[in-house]
Amino acid sequence: MDLGWRVRLSPPDGLRSSLVSKLTDVPKRILIGRALRSDRLGETLLPKRVALPVFASDPLSSVAYAPGEVLLVLSIAGLSAYHFSPWIAAAVVVLMFTVVASYRQNVHAYPSGGGDYEVATTNLGPKAGLTVASALLVDYVLTVAVSISSGIENLGSAIPFVVENKVACAIGVIVLLTLMNLRGVKESGTLFAIPTYVFVAGVFLMIAWGAFRGVVLGDDMRAPTADFEIKPEHPGLAGFALIFLLLRAFSSGCAALTGVEAISNGVPAFRKPKSRNAATTLAMMGLLAVTMFCGIIGLAMATDVRMAENPAKDLIHDGAPLGPDYVQDPVISQVAEAVFGHGSLLFVVLAAATALVLFLAANTAYNGFPLLGSILAQDRYLPRQLHTRGDRLAFSNGIVLLAGAAGLLVWVYGADSTRLIQLYIVGVFVSFTLSQTGMVRHWNRLLATENDQAKRRHMIRSRAINTFGAFFTGLVLVVVLVTKFTHGAWVALLGMCIFYATMTAIRRHYDRVAEEIAAPDTPTDDSVRPSRVHSVVLISKIHRPTLRALAYARLMRSDTLEALSVNVDPDETRALREEWERRGIDVPLKVLDSPYREVTRPVIEYVKGLRHEAPRDVVSVIIPEYVVGHWYEHLLHNQSALRLKGRLLFTPGVMVTSVPYQLESSEAAKQRARRRQDWAAPGSVRRGPAERAKDSSTHT
Amino acid sequence: MDLGWRVRLSPPDGLRSSLVSKLTDVPKRILIGRALRSDRLGETLLPKRVALPVFASDPLSSVAYAPGEVLLVLSIAGLSAYHFSPWIAAAVVVLMFTVVASYRQNVHAYPSGGGDYEVATTNLGPKAGLTVASALLVDYVLTVAVSISSGIENLGSAIPFVVENKVACAIGVIVLLTLMNLRGVKESGTLFAIPTYVFVAGVFLMIAWGAFRGVVLGDDMRAPTADFEIKPEHPGLAGFALIFLLLRAFSSGCAALTGVEAISNGVPAFRKPKSRNAATTLAMMGLLAVTMFCGIIGLAMATDVRMAENPAKDLIHDGAPLGPDYVQDPVISQVAEAVFGHGSLLFVVLAAATALVLFLAANTAYNGFPLLGSILAQDRYLPRQLHTRGDRLAFSNGIVLLAGAAGLLVWVYGADSTRLIQLYIVGVFVSFTLSQTGMVRHWNRLLATENDQAKRRHMIRSRAINTFGAFFTGLVLVVVLVTKFTHGAWVALLGMCIFYATMTAIRRHYDRVAEEIAAPDTPTDDSVRPSRVHSVVLISKIHRPTLRALAYARLMRSDTLEALSVNVDPDETRALREEWERRGIDVPLKVLDSPYREVTRPVIEYVKGLRHEAPRDVVSVIIPEYVVGHWYEHLLHNQSALRLKGRLLFTPGVMVTSVPYQLESSEAAKQRARRRQDWAAPGSVRRGPAERAKDSSTHT
Repeated sequence: MDLGWRVRLSPPDGLRSSLVSKLTDVPKRILIGRALRSDRLGETLLPKRVALPVFASDPLSSVAYAPGEVLLVLSIAGLSAYHFSPWIAAAVVVLMFTVVASYRQNVHAYPSGGGDYEVATTNLGPKAGLTVASALLVDYVLTVAVSISSGIENLGSAIPFVVENKVACAIGVIVLLTLMNLRGVKESGTLFAIPTYVFVAGVFLMIAWGAFRGVVLGDDMRAPTADFEIKPEHPGLAGFALIFLLLRAFSSGCAALTGVEAISNGVPAFRKPKSRNAATTLAMMGLLAVTMFCGIIGLAMATDVRMAENPAKDLIHDGAPLGPDYVQDPVISQVAEAVFGHGSLLFVVLAAATALVLFLAANTAYNGFPLLGSILAQDRYLPRQLHTRGDRLAFSNGIVLLAGAAGLLVWVYGADSTRLIQLYIVGVFVSFTLSQTGMVRHWNRLLATENDQAKRRHMIRSRAINTFGAFFTGLVLVVVLVTKFTHGAWVALLGMCIFYATMTAIRRHYDRVAEEIAAPDTPTDDSVRPSRVHSVVLISKIHRPTLRALAYARLMRSDTLEALSVNVDPDETRALREEWERRGIDVPLKVLDSPYREVTRPVIEYVKGLRHEAPRDVVSVIIPEYVVGHWYEHLLHNQSALRLKGRLLFTPGVMVTSVPYQLESSEAAKQRARRRQDWAAPGSVRRGPAERAKDSSTHT
Repeated sequence: MDLGWRVRLSPPDGLRSSLVSKLTDVPKRILIGRALRSDRLGETLLPKRVALPVFASDPLSSVAYAPGEVLLVLSIAGLSAYHFSPWIAAAVVVLMFTVVASYRQNVHAYPSGGGDYEVATTNLGPKAGLTVASALLVDYVLTVAVSISSGIENLGSAIPFVVENKVACAIGVIVLLTLMNLRGVKESGTLFAIPTYVFVAGVFLMIAWGAFRGVVLGDDMRAPTADFEIKPEHPGLAGFALIFLLLRAFSSGCAALTGVEAISNGVPAFRKPKSRNAATTLAMMGLLAVTMFCGIIGLAMATDVRMAENPAKDLIHDGAPLGPDYVQDPVISQVAEAVFGHGSLLFVVLAAATALVLFLAANTAYNGFPLLGSILAQDRYLPRQLHTRGDRLAFSNGIVLLAGAAGLLVWVYGADSTRLIQLYIVGVFVSFTLSQTGMVRHWNRLLATENDQAKRRHMIRSRAINTFGAFFTGLVLVVVLVTKFTHGAWVALLGMCIFYATMTAIRRHYDRVAEEIAAPDTPTDDSVRPSRVHSVVLISKIHRPTLRALAYARLMRSDTLEALSVNVDPDETRALREEWERRGIDVPLKVLDSPYREVTRPVIEYVKGLRHEAPRDVVSVIIPEYVVGHWYEHLLHNQSALRLKGRLLFTPGVMVTSVPYQLESSEAAKQRARRRQDWAAPGSVRRGPAERAKDSSTHT
């Protein structure tokens, strides 16, 4: 019954996961919902095999750049340092397992799909929540910037042109994704599934084939950079300096963890049992990620990949540095070249798949960002209108903001994924740490009330996991901050501060207003108890719009009704008076004089006058308005009416009524408005139908 | 009594100079007018001695560049051609007298201050009128561009820096004037009087002193350029070519006539007897202009001023051309230098006065342009809102448009008055010719009905003058077109065409709409006879604004009243329902469901539903609105309300009522709006109080 008819509603729902209300209004919803949602009845929930690619494109794609980053950093200490890479890989694997294990707890605890923001807010209070939110917002921007830059680099390893015009192409892709999302994309599971599985399959085939060639056939596979020398920036690094370098390499490797949290937002999209399935998928995802990560590092070692932070001067070939023209291919494509052979079909396919998956990863940010925006708007940290989902305008703002910020970063950093990654990891770990800390609190709270021993044991276990998770991710956060702050992390932090400050200010404004307009329990306030209403219809000429306005005004049986005209031209006024007589209109016509030929002031004065005579009365000003279709027509009509309305709104005790008259040309605009409404907000797939979300929230 | 309390109204009044209405509503006007206009009671009408400078700054200032232009053109045929200049001066003088004589007739015939546009429209029909209007609009732009460029050049003769950064300085002055006029300048007669009289006195002193030195003392005064040679571009020009050149020189000299028509717009500003005073002032102005013009040409001859169109290559000194660095001072300053001596106090004072008068001349365009705009708007050739005078916004648009166009020209033509003047004269003579032709028609019309012989004789005389004026100015127009078309006149013509086309299009649009909305004589139309009204108050939360909206809605005793809320969040909705009960609000609350968490669509659907049930009924949608003070607050409020209103206006049979609730911050905006209203539209002085205009219109 009723499959996914509130799909777009779920996440904020999850936020306020209040079972009662949901159960109570289910029946009505089904009745009303059905009718409206018939267009989506076909939709189904995601089986694990589809859910995996849908959610994992982001985390899996990060293995396309993470291994390379590790080697890059190590190269600073020279080739010798490369032999540390297995250890660093191991550390990353441990971290990955920790994070995955921790998030499996989230998934069980918040099956409504509450993300880190919700976990932090509910358990650590709004400030922590807002910090996470800022971190996530920055993260979304960086996901786009990094993924696309890296995608371009991978594409470039197959198609040189692309990497020669890196920035242009990267911006191009951003524009493309932006337009797609502004138009409203109908996402489908398969859209994600195909490239993701091709990518995963490709990488595994590469690892397997590589291992087979190396071990069984004993081939000597050599990466294109194999016979380069590395000129170490700091040769013979040792002691603390070395440890620091290794830590930096490790925190670069942590890039592999970005996007792991995605699934925990998407539980509602899973088939039942949601939580278990989500948890399993999470585990699968982790397993795939680490295998690919280690596999690539392993192959990189086996094929003697050489990477340097500044390839131009630090990579030596035949005694001479390679110079600025040298383009350093990403490690994954170098390995692929070594294993499959340059220009081989498999090599090209893998490069393409990698790029595609990275672009998909970027695309996920395009629905995550506005979604989070709408959640924050609901909590009044952002303008309310962002909250009305499926509202194209609100969404577009978010999308454009995201694209703008990402584009700026790409442009500033020359679409260089290596430099962008320096900014990336901070935000991720801020939210990891706070979310895990929140989980610990969460379990403590439950434990305080829970008596069932089995459950308690279970909770204590979960708490232990989350505690470790919080501790470890926190540690990494410190490491990242220390090792990367000067390398660009400060930019990310700055971004977070800006978001934080803005959102706090907005929230403060809303609170102030809410306080100002709070309704008194005993309606003593005068403005709430007016006694009579005087209606005033503004008349310039006698034509259909004014006649309609008069007719409508008559229907509202107000205490007094008069027509009001401003005399800006004696002749026109006289003509008006005469026609008024001729037509025998039974509404008294009052003409205000206007020395300055203004319309606004005299009307305002008059209205104020009425109010002055009877302060407890209300004046209802009725304005006939043309409705036109084209922007330039707006310049030609209603201007004075609009200005007058604007001014009247400042006059207390007044209500302003527009009586529209639709000109033929208005049809055009009507159509436009319709089209805009029938627009599909992006990213519905990964949020899943909400009817399930409701059931699942019973787990809480 | 009642001095000038409708000052800003006069000109369009003049346009529709209908005596009756004005007399009928005078008493009421005085009553209401007084109150509003108390701030201007001090104002008085202009005596001739003040009127002259107020209106003559434009025409008089043109003698600062006209003489130079004559010499420039002649120089093409070599120094020998200089001896034609007296003849050309003579021709200009004759033309000046003709034009002045003709406009003296306008002044008598249209004492209401109707400009060329009115004369042409009423006598030659709208097309002619629109042509004149286009010509005048282009003219205003060029007045600014030419006057300021020339002013800069004159200033430059005293302060080299200015002329070295010609364009920058010119643009600077434009910006300054623009800001002044946007702020709203309180013009006063003296503001014009002082520099104008200083300028006139200076020039006359120069002429007198020059004559005295030359004739009595027999000094040999030599202009700084006196001992330059002129390399003629076309030496030994003869026959038709020579005549053509002389005609070109003549049409350049005609630049002296620009702005003569100004007085004919400003009759209402004169003391009684308005027309006679205006005519006298016109004559004085003409006399001054020609004397100064001839005097300067004469002195230029006497002091051997040498000017060339391309001074860089055509002026030879010691056998070598002067080269690009040479700056050619305007003739007036060269003469002043010769007469008073370089750097002498009088020289500097004159240069300053000249520049100042030229800037004043430019400033006159700043009130002429928007004024004409408002007149055209009244005739629906431009957006209506330009018609509401004293409306800062409308005015600002005109001012900014003018400044922009002038700035562009100055920039494109490098603030070179000589090149700009090529564009200038076309428009002037288009309006001269059409206006004079119109006058001929005017007299014919009157003569057809007039029987009093004395009057007839008078009219016939006037007609003769205007006929000659029309003929002569028409001839000059042809000459100007022929001799200057390729030199830039085509630009002016293009500008005129653009204005003409735009205004025709706008008029067509207004006419189409007027037709569409024309009220049927027998109100058969259904939409005009609705039967019942259903009021719907939109509720999101219960707070003061919504309570106020409810209270107001109750006052309007509509047939049905219900509160409408859209369920975007079940919890909020439940809370709303509960509070609704608790407060025992006696209005039924209906909650619409919104799967997509939209607000707009469900409401629209619901309203359409109501309409569908009873097509002849009207739905009144009442929306509580916050009124905030700052633009950024707008982003935080009312967005969905505004969007909803926008959509509702397209739904037939609906009226949309805003019930404003003024937040504290709204005070700020209120103040701003007030300030904007108490703004004084520029150029009131030259239009004169309208109460006098009314009397004077009795002459018609």
